Amino acid sequence: MSRMDEVLRDIDGNFDTAVRKLLELIAIPSISSEPEGRDGIERAASWLKDELSSIGLPAEIVPTSGHPLVLARSSGAPNGARPKLLFYGHYDVQPVGDPGQWTHAPFEPRVREEEGLHRFYGRGASDSKSQLWTFIEALRAWKHIHGAFPADIIVLLEGEEECGSPSLPKFIEKHRDRLDCDVAFICDAEMWSPAQPAITTQLKGLVHERVKVSAPNPDLHSGHYGAVAANPIRILSTILAGLHDEEGRVTIDGFYDGVEEIPNVVREQWRELAKEPDLYGGVDLTGGITEAGYSALEAMWGRPTVDINGITGGNQGPGERSVLPGSATARLSFRLVAGQSPEKIRQQFQRHVRFRLPPGCSVEFEGSGGSSAVVLSQHSPFLAAAARGLQEEWGRPAILRGTGGAIPLVQQFSDVLGAECVVIGFILPSDAIHAPDERYDTERLLKGARSWVRIFGEIQNHAAAG
Amino acid sequence: MSRMDEVLRDIDGNFDTAVRKLLELIAIPSISSEPEGRDGIERAASWLKDELSSIGLPAEIVPTSGHPLVLARSSGAPNGARPKLLFYGHYDVQPVGDPGQWTHAPFEPRVREEEGLHRFYGRGASDSKSQLWTFIEALRAWKHIHGAFPADIIVLLEGEEECGSPSLPKFIEKHRDRLDCDVAFICDAEMWSPAQPAITTQLKGLVHERVKVSAPNPDLHSGHYGAVAANPIRILSTILAGLHDEEGRVTIDGFYDGVEEIPNVVREQWRELAKEPDLYGGVDLTGGITEAGYSALEAMWGRPTVDINGITGGNQGPGERSVLPGSATARLSFRLVAGQSPEKIRQQFQRHVRFRLPPGCSVEFEGSGGSSAVVLSQHSPFLAAAARGLQEEWGRPAILRGTGGAIPLVQQFSDVLGAECVVIGFILPSDAIHAPDERYDTERLLKGARSWVRIFGEIQNHAAAG
Repeated sequence: MSRMDEVLRDIDGNFDTAVRKLLELIAIPSISSEPEGRDGIERAASWLKDELSSIGLPAEIVPTSGHPLVLARSSGAPNGARPKLLFYGHYDVQPVGDPGQWTHAPFEPRVREEEGLHRFYGRGASDSKSQLWTFIEALRAWKHIHGAFPADIIVLLEGEEECGSPSLPKFIEKHRDRLDCDVAFICDAEMWSPAQPAITTQLKGLVHERVKVSAPNPDLHSGHYGAVAANPIRILSTILAGLHDEEGRVTIDGFYDGVEEIPNVVREQWRELAKEPDLYGGVDLTGGITEAGYSALEAMWGRPTVDINGITGGNQGPGERSVLPGSATARLSFRLVAGQSPEKIRQQFQRHVRFRLPPGCSVEFEGSGGSSAVVLSQHSPFLAAAARGLQEEWGRPAILRGTGGAIPLVQQFSDVLGAECVVIGFILPSDAIHAPDERYDTERLLKGARSWVRIFGEIQNHAAAG
Repeated sequence: MSRMDEVLRDIDGNFDTAVRKLLELIAIPSISSEPEGRDGIERAASWLKDELSSIGLPAEIVPTSGHPLVLARSSGAPNGARPKLLFYGHYDVQPVGDPGQWTHAPFEPRVREEEGLHRFYGRGASDSKSQLWTFIEALRAWKHIHGAFPADIIVLLEGEEECGSPSLPKFIEKHRDRLDCDVAFICDAEMWSPAQPAITTQLKGLVHERVKVSAPNPDLHSGHYGAVAANPIRILSTILAGLHDEEGRVTIDGFYDGVEEIPNVVREQWRELAKEPDLYGGVDLTGGITEAGYSALEAMWGRPTVDINGITGGNQGPGERSVLPGSATARLSFRLVAGQSPEKIRQQFQRHVRFRLPPGCSVEFEGSGGSSAVVLSQHSPFLAAAARGLQEEWGRPAILRGTGGAIPLVQQFSDVLGAECVVIGFILPSDAIHAPDERYDTERLLKGARSWVRIFGEIQNHAAAG
């Protein structure tokens, strides 16, 4: 039996334990964007620190002004001859949203047989606790069989990914020496389909912005003043409704400045990919408005967009109330492509709103930071090694794909650390990430962990050959 | 000293007690549209039953399928020779809304000197607990001095006014014999100004409707699907933004069917009234859109309108969440004028929304009942007596006014009981009814109670003369 087979067998043999531990982690409500999540964040960080240390990756919890990061590094003198690999994951999760929309408790995961899979439900089940668990389990098994890691290893686990990674840029800047690596594997992305792996080489940028429109008056009786006084819900609705024209183009002045057309060669690639039968994992696009002139895949991966994520104003029920509200608030996000700057988009949007504000009314904005889009090279040797490893495990080639999602740290890793980034993940659209009944299955978890083992092997082969 | 003066002096002398008791009533959180209000409703009804009984108006609590009514009638054989007077008030209150917007606790009223008045704050302070307390205190004093009421008296206090009076029509129908009266005084309306009383002779109708738009999918990750899948907030915003055209006219097909122009003579009257310096009680109309071709007063009193009272969808915070929500909900109310039917308006609105719904999306509506507009005769002898009584107390003539508010029972009293209705109240725009920091002052409470005593006197004079 080859050493590779031994490691894979170790993964298989230890799998019940690996699943049990992962469910422990998912049961911790590490919600980063709500104050009540603080305790869960701390418990998850501590749990991960202990796990990493136990497999020979001495770990520490690094505090930030927000939520802490967990940083682990393989011990022993660095061996200059072999590459340094960094693995990134995040242990924080999205809020639950309306608990009534879940049919499974969001923090009580259990494995159940369903549709031919062994599935478990929970917030963070897919995004991203199973993801980080794939490489931790692979590292454990490799070390167990080989007595050493396949290279110098850094593991970096973030606790603020779901709230915009506010502390990460400063952390990377401050700890650039400790994070120094040849390649950063970012494990928080989608596969292509349940049977086919993918490497994400094109990511959108992201800007969150909150806008609160206020009338000149506090709440009023709508029977008395509805006919004549300003209604912030009506004003905000009008602004939101006007953000797109009839062709689905964003109407914000300057929004498309600097945006280049998707190259024909890329469109050609994507046209091929779009032939995949269940491209959207069961999501029904009926009633959606795609920007005119672009296919759905082109709009998702290659065109900048504005989304309304939330709106609140006036009476929230349960009963009726004849109120003319004093204010209304919307939450928006902008998904950027190459050529767009987060700060400029934010300013353009604010100008757009102010210009449409009736006299006497006021507006407040809240939001900061944001990330630019990233297009990664398709010619890196680490990407090639990863593609080979994925193909060995899944029996089908890894698709080089784009995504509408954002991973801001990719840009930061490239810029500050000068590291190559390879974005791999085993998420599927049907995992319902960010939504009620988020789920994952042990079948993908196993193949995910095995994929990393094969990628380690390919990297060693490449290093040996190099 | 005349008997009239004696009664007025009794009111003045008992005033501290009257205020203390009223504050007791305001302290009871009798919110009718929220399940948590049930206990407050029951306590308020019981408190009022005891108070009415104690002044010689044997009262009972009449259950309904919703909240109970309190019904009291003067005892003794009815005297066919004198008129039967019914007094209507409501003891339920609006929800508090966001408690953070109150600077005074909503159910802990205390009298404080402020701006030359003795003011007290609380939900229901003005709408409508002080209102019903004016006639109860007047009846108490009259009986105390005269040993008898000025006429056969019926007092009817409702507990569902703020949630659309769902049980009242059936109640009136069922108890028409016990409610039989010559005139119904509806005490739940505005004065003209702090110094000038008013009688409301024109009321709008009211229809509440909730609309929930759902996409074909549950919540999705907005980064992945925002560019292509239906967004219910965007759809709902577009529908709401399109409810009015650029001239402020409602775009719902058929909405103005049957609506007659405001008669020139009425417009002339209202033009005079609109010269009042502080017509809107400090409310700033800047940024509001009044229907083109109408003054603000004409739009408020004489034109049908659509108001958005609330909207909810997607992420409600506090943190950001990249969610493409599965649904979004808006709460609307329609204020009707003569010639419009609540049921027809509801149907027209629903058709309007369905017609604008993108394919694949669905809509649910919730709402029922509603009321028509009412225009009362200005030539009733009871109205004339009331106008004289008000003028005696306030030293200025009572304005015959319109209102944007609705009092559905006026129509029901006219239709079922064949009674004349006279709508009088001592509310001011600056009372912040339905809003945070609702307030009232003891000065108006006193003059309100004294007004009723004078109106009783005028009715007796009229009856004696007739």
